[in-house]
Amino acid sequence: MSALQDTLDAKAAVVTRFLERYFSDRLALQAVNKGIQPDMKALPALPPGLETLLRCIRYSTLQEGGKRFRPALAMMTAEALGFSSDRVLAFGAAVECVHTYSLVHDDLPPMDDDDFRRGQPTNHRVFGEAFAILGGDGLLSEAFRMIAGHYRAEPVACVQAIEELSLAAGPCGMVGGQAIDLRSKTEDIQFDELQVMHRMKTGALIRASAVGAAHLCFATPGQVAQIREYASSLGLAFQVTDDLLDYDPEKPEPGSYPTLLGVDQAKSHLATLTERCLSAIESWGSRAEPLRELARYNRSRMR
Amino acid sequence: MSALQDTLDAKAAVVTRFLERYFSDRLALQAVNKGIQPDMKALPALPPGLETLLRCIRYSTLQEGGKRFRPALAMMTAEALGFSSDRVLAFGAAVECVHTYSLVHDDLPPMDDDDFRRGQPTNHRVFGEAFAILGGDGLLSEAFRMIAGHYRAEPVACVQAIEELSLAAGPCGMVGGQAIDLRSKTEDIQFDELQVMHRMKTGALIRASAVGAAHLCFATPGQVAQIREYASSLGLAFQVTDDLLDYDPEKPEPGSYPTLLGVDQAKSHLATLTERCLSAIESWGSRAEPLRELARYNRSRMR
Repeated sequence: MSALQDTLDAKAAVVTRFLERYFSDRLALQAVNKGIQPDMKALPALPPGLETLLRCIRYSTLQEGGKRFRPALAMMTAEALGFSSDRVLAFGAAVECVHTYSLVHDDLPPMDDDDFRRGQPTNHRVFGEAFAILGGDGLLSEAFRMIAGHYRAEPVACVQAIEELSLAAGPCGMVGGQAIDLRSKTEDIQFDELQVMHRMKTGALIRASAVGAAHLCFATPGQVAQIREYASSLGLAFQVTDDLLDYDPEKPEPGSYPTLLGVDQAKSHLATLTERCLSAIESWGSRAEPLRELARYNRSRMR
Repeated sequence: MSALQDTLDAKAAVVTRFLERYFSDRLALQAVNKGIQPDMKALPALPPGLETLLRCIRYSTLQEGGKRFRPALAMMTAEALGFSSDRVLAFGAAVECVHTYSLVHDDLPPMDDDDFRRGQPTNHRVFGEAFAILGGDGLLSEAFRMIAGHYRAEPVACVQAIEELSLAAGPCGMVGGQAIDLRSKTEDIQFDELQVMHRMKTGALIRASAVGAAHLCFATPGQVAQIREYASSLGLAFQVTDDLLDYDPEKPEPGSYPTLLGVDQAKSHLATLTERCLSAIESWGSRAEPLRELARYNRSRMR
């Protein structure tokens, strides 16, 4: 695990540096001036509202403790396909922006109403609900701009990555899963729907991280199908492990895997999903070893 | 004006039909099943939360009274460039989704806290704040998916349109303008910043409607620069006219054009902007006549 952890930590640091630079004051001002050009004279400084918006975005994007798991997965996918991880850095950072916006909106009072995240006050506790809404909205738009701006020289792959991410982020993916989750708190929900909820709410973005990266590395349709299967199973496997680690027989969480399946069957489901990850990319050779390690590591969290 | 109004009405009806079909129950179910494939069996019906999300999105997207101004502008741009308006229908509909999401989020209690829009209860008054947040988020992601999915066979133009729209929608465009507006209500703001606010908050999306459409019709860089100038000036001209029509000398709205410039100078600013619209596309021939008519019509609203 230690070598894998080093790999993940190194990639997280690269992503954080990229985002730090992307959302710097200076670049934001240049970008705004580019956006309002050529009709108006350039601003000498960010107006107060824009300055607050930027701080709001930076606060959640650069908050301590972000594991940058999704970008790291994108980067490991690129390396498994024989590319440098830099190739998908901007794409991975865009996925992280989508992930971050979803946390900011999820924490809002009408949603989960959380005051703290990773030990720090949530975005709306610092900047107010209006800026938390706007900051999240801005991150989502900016994610697509990041991809379009960065990969426009490879337009076919660029469009594939954008289509994958927008599907995964929207009503047929993450947002749809959140909607199912909202109603599942107040209404009876079937097991099939719960499975779909997990798949959409957290699985879709994990899948898009790997699949979008594969597109940007010109993967063949066969390779895309394999990494899709790998990442889909990995997303579910993480969910099962998290549910098992959180499981308290005294207070079983409704809709968690051990509650619905029992602990033993949840563990055997985890084993099946892990096998599915490994066999999906069986033919990928030694460069894919970190991806395999990731699936094995997740399973080992249960021991 | 009547011929122009007929043109606008006809285009609005086409856009509404497109959106009606796009957000139909049946298509949503297909899309969700596509999104969660190939790992899970297809759902026979939408889960309750997803069904609510879809109704929430349909409610605001298909609400009575939407003028569909932005898609109509995209379609008129395509026709001015010798293309059928159908060419940019999906793009125009995507811009309308971005516009609609911004209204849904703008109406939320922490933002403008509006109970009614176009004579009907606002989205969060019907579906609650959580669904209004999610519905808006979903519309924004779906807008980019609509473009990527529809124009992937023309990837260069597709990426250009996505980059234009994401810039216009995000912190360097609409969301940035909203952020400036939020702070301008409570703090002193300079005239230059107010100009930038209007340009970003409403102007950017109007500009992107025309410029994105031009990209999708393979406009030359020169044509893109011309339509950008046209649409930028048109967006400001609409703002000046709206401000003049709303102007009440007894209760001058802070930050409106007549309040800041005086009525006479605001009117002469409007004349200048209208001239700028007309001269930007002077060389575009008779197919661009509806675009010119639009600029003249806006000015005539003041007579």
